[in-house]
Formats: sequence, C-alpha cells, structure tokens
Amino acid sequence: MNPILVVGSVALDTVKTPAGSIADGLGGSATYFSLAARYFSPVQLVAVVGEDFPRAHRNLLSERGVDCSGLKTAKGKTFRWSGKYGKDAGVAKTLATHLNVFKDFSPKLDAPHRKAPVVFLANIDPELQSEVLAQMTAPALVACDTMNYWIDSKPEALKELLAKVDVFFCNEEEAEKLTGAPNPLQAADVIASWGPSVVVVKKGEHGSLMRIGGTFYMFPCFPLPNIKDPTGAGDTFAGGFLGYLASCGSYDDVGHMKRAMAYGTVMASFNVEDFSTKNIEDLDRDRIDERFHDLLDRMSVPRAEDLLKARRPIPA
Amino acid sequence: MNPILVVGSVALDTVKTPAGSIADGLGGSATYFSLAARYFSPVQLVAVVGEDFPRAHRNLLSERGVDCSGLKTAKGKTFRWSGKYGKDAGVAKTLATHLNVFKDFSPKLDAPHRKAPVVFLANIDPELQSEVLAQMTAPALVACDTMNYWIDSKPEALKELLAKVDVFFCNEEEAEKLTGAPNPLQAADVIASWGPSVVVVKKGEHGSLMRIGGTFYMFPCFPLPNIKDPTGAGDTFAGGFLGYLASCGSYDDVGHMKRAMAYGTVMASFNVEDFSTKNIEDLDRDRIDERFHDLLDRMSVPRAEDLLKARRPIPA
Repeated sequence: MNPILVVGSVALDTVKTPAGSIADGLGGSATYFSLAARYFSPVQLVAVVGEDFPRAHRNLLSERGVDCSGLKTAKGKTFRWSGKYGKDAGVAKTLATHLNVFKDFSPKLDAPHRKAPVVFLANIDPELQSEVLAQMTAPALVACDTMNYWIDSKPEALKELLAKVDVFFCNEEEAEKLTGAPNPLQAADVIASWGPSVVVVKKGEHGSLMRIGGTFYMFPCFPLPNIKDPTGAGDTFAGGFLGYLASCGSYDDVGHMKRAMAYGTVMASFNVEDFSTKNIEDLDRDRIDERFHDLLDRMSVPRAEDLLKARRPIPA
Repeated sequence: MNPILVVGSVALDTVKTPAGSIADGLGGSATYFSLAARYFSPVQLVAVVGEDFPRAHRNLLSERGVDCSGLKTAKGKTFRWSGKYGKDAGVAKTLATHLNVFKDFSPKLDAPHRKAPVVFLANIDPELQSEVLAQMTAPALVACDTMNYWIDSKPEALKELLAKVDVFFCNEEEAEKLTGAPNPLQAADVIASWGPSVVVVKKGEHGSLMRIGGTFYMFPCFPLPNIKDPTGAGDTFAGGFLGYLASCGSYDDVGHMKRAMAYGTVMASFNVEDFSTKNIEDLDRDRIDERFHDLLDRMSVPRAEDLLKARRPIPA
C-alpha cells in the first residue's frame, strides 16, 4: 500500500445553501481529501488546528484510519470559513475568512512523512507548498491544487511550484484566470507547458477533463438532481483520484488515470449530498464501487460489432 | 433504409464570430439537420425558400442525396437571420430576423412524405409542428426541437405537441425555462412527465444528457480548443442522432440511443469547425466513424478486472 501525504487546511466551516445550513462543521481541504482518499490508500494528514478544535473531529479522522500524527494543535483558534451558495451551486460567496492559527502554518514534516511516495499539496500558499515539497525524500507522484487568491497574489510562486508537479488540479475558472486562455482546453495546454504531465480541470456539474501528453479525456458528472452542499467537492475529487491511483502503484497508465477520474467524480458526488463531511464519513468500498459502476453504465457507449470492424487506427 | 422527414427552416444566415464572419451563408434548422442526417439515412426535406434562394444551395442539398421535392419556392424573399457570437460560443446575439416567406409557412405534405417512419419537427411554431404531425400516416418515431421564442409565446401549444412526441431535443436554458426547474435533470423529469420517453438536453461545450425511463445518461463534448461558428450545432446534433437511430431500425435499444448521442456529438463537433454548413458538406462515413471512435476512446473508462469481479448488480 502506498501512503499519501496531504498538507492543507483543517477548518470549521459555517455554510448556508438553499437546502439548509451548518455552523462550525468539520471542513478544510486536507480534511475532505483525507476522508475521501482513505477508502483506497493510507493517508497521512499534515495540518494545524487551534485549541478549540473539537476532540470529536480529531477522533473522527483517526478512527477512520487517517494518520493524524501530523495534525498539530497550536495556541489560538482553528481556521474558520463561512460561505453561502445560491441557486448556482458552482459559486460560493465567502462571507468571512478567519485564518487564526492557519496564518502561521509552516509545516515541518516528521521523518516518516518525508518518505511518502505520493504527496498532495492542497490549496495553501504556493511558497509553502514548495517548502513542503523540498522536505520530501523522493516522491513518485506530486499533485497540487490552488485557488483564485494565490493566482492573483502569487502567480510566479505558483508557476515555480508547477514546474515540480506531476498532477495539477484546478477548476475551469482558475485555469482560465491563471493562463488568460479563453477555454479550459487551451488553458490546460498552457499549464502543461509549465510542467505538470497531467492537468485535471474540474467543471462542477459539467464534469471534468484530463490532459495527458497532449490528449484530452472527457468525463461527465454523476447525475444528482438535488445537492445539499458543494463545499469540499474539489478536494474529495482529488482524494478519490489520488487515493485510487496510489492503490494502483503505477502512475503512468491511462486506464488507471481514467478510473481515477471516475473515482474522483464518484467521491465528489457522495460529498455534495450532505453538509460538511457527513456523507463521506461512513461509506464503504462496496457502496463506492457500486456508484463507480453505475457512473460507468451511464457514460459508456458500446461500440457496435459492425462499427468495430469498420474501425480505423486512431492517430495518437 | 428508414427515411427521415424533416420539417423546418432553410435560411440565409449572416454571422459574425471572433473567428470571422459570413454573409448570406446557407443555414436554417432543416438544412443543418438534413446535411448531418443523410450520412446515415435517407432524408426528405420539407421547407420553403424565396425566389432569391441561390440555385447553388438547392443543388448542394440535392447533390448530397437530400430529397428536395418538399422544398418549395414561394413568392418573396428567403428567411434571413443575422447574429453575433462573443467569447462565449454558447450565446448568440440576434441582430436581425426577417421571416419573409417563412412567415406564411404552412406545409402540406406530399403523399410519399406522409409515410416516413421517422419525423423531425425542427424549431418552428408548435401549432405548425402539430399540424404537420397530424398529416403523417403512422410514424414509428416522432422527434422535435423548439426555442425560447415558442416557450415564451406558446407554452401550451408546445406541451400539447410534446404529448405526441417520442424524443425531445432542447438545450439547458430552454429546459429550465420551459419547466421552471433549477437544473437540467429536474427539468428533464418534468418534460418526460408530459410525454417524451426520451429527453435530450444539450449543454454546448459541456456535453449533453439523455433521460430514458427515469435513468440519466451523461455525455461529454468532443474537445475542440478552437471553434469558428456554433450556428447549427443543435440541429446537426439532432441530425447525427436521428440519422444514426433511423439506420438501426429499432427505437427502444439503449445501446443504439447511446451511440446516437455520440454520433450527434460528433456531427455537431464537425459543424462548429467552420462557418455555415461548410464542414458538414463533404464528410464521409469513414471520417465520421474515425471521430466517433476517437470520442469513445477519450470518454471510455475501462473497468479493471478485479473491479469487474467485485461488481454488484446495479439497481435499475
């Protein structure tokens, strides 16, 4: 089993959506990622919380197999975010951000964590992401995420980071903002030219795309007529993707990568069905695989026999 | 071979996009549909043009095998539309609409056309669509399209039509406007309750979805980093879909329907690569099947051996 090191935020989120609301729910990029990835691979969590972080939340993570030895408690309060979603689940309106202890987050990795073969640098300051990466011994696969805030404030640091990254996750808006390209396809081409051999662009309810070696692979969303809370969808997607890929043990097989995209889609779809992390806390691999196959049934197009015969070689 | 009767508009379009412009180019819903569908099945075109309709355009259609015996010439000028697209290819800004001879369009079907097994009622007044349908002997498959204008002005006539329709094509915005539903999934459920057993919602660059018997099937778009002119994409989609389905000769096989969605996607992708109908005039089935298989390669997710073994029955 290949463990995944994730470095990012653990937070308390207050969220309001048309389906309801939650106050001080468990949140943060590293939290969502960990809870999704651990169904597939061991996860080592590196983050910081304040003295007010509920014991129950820490227990929730460790009881589910997440290695919390890197989850430090610092003097002060836990990072808090509050936001609101309207009819369009794709757009969060941030009401308040209190960085609290997260402001001074500067992770020093413990010896065992430095050796992790797979690392996910969740959405934090790109300079910090680079510092964490510099502490790693020799990761086989480096993945990262970012957000508009860093694209605006530290684009050069982000590009320096991307030169050292294998898999970059972003959403459509971020990809276009980062590159100035008019669509996610052209944006992914530009991003790939900076370093990442795999670029994943998430488009919310419109699915996602993956660029590998100049070829685009396209994925629809799992159809959900009602969603409760989109918070964390991107991080659970990354968790499903990297968790599955790490379990495969090889990182250059397009079949593995395609299934990783489908597992990312599936984990995100579970996540948005309830507030906070509620719906990804107590799944099991059977339920996950059931939805994985359900998704594949909905998106697969069987090639007809006579069409197979007529088939010509496809240019690479 | 099952012929398809299409009733709709043949027009002269003046279009400006960021990639260039064209004046009085061949256009109209029935034109795009016919040129796409005829690669798969015989097409009978019923429409009206004015005395100014260029001979070359009529020849273009008939030389490509489209039965133009129902393409009548009336006293006056041909229907003209002019529009403009900005950076967002999904949104056309209409600059001018001159209905001209199309204003008095009230098709009387010739005897051979009444017997067509498949009919596509392209975007015209829903009362006219119903009148055309009433002239048909016993079509095995009835499909239709519409547009915002009719949703606003004749919603009741449209609902009456839908009760008699098997396959309804619409785009995301139309589906939500017609039903008041907040997303295309809920909208498709409502539309299906009015009659159509198959509801196809097109989402432009974000792909499409198909609802059959309460199940949603999801399809991505073919990835094109540059498009020239999105005009007619919806009608070429419908042409690829129905042309392929008619060639299968049975209309209740989900595999056929899924391939029909993929062929619709492929034909629309060719269409948007050039202005007017230029890029769908001289394709051949080999080039179409090549892109069909290319699309399937990009969207297929191979089930791993061990996952197949782990697979449980999926609820219907």
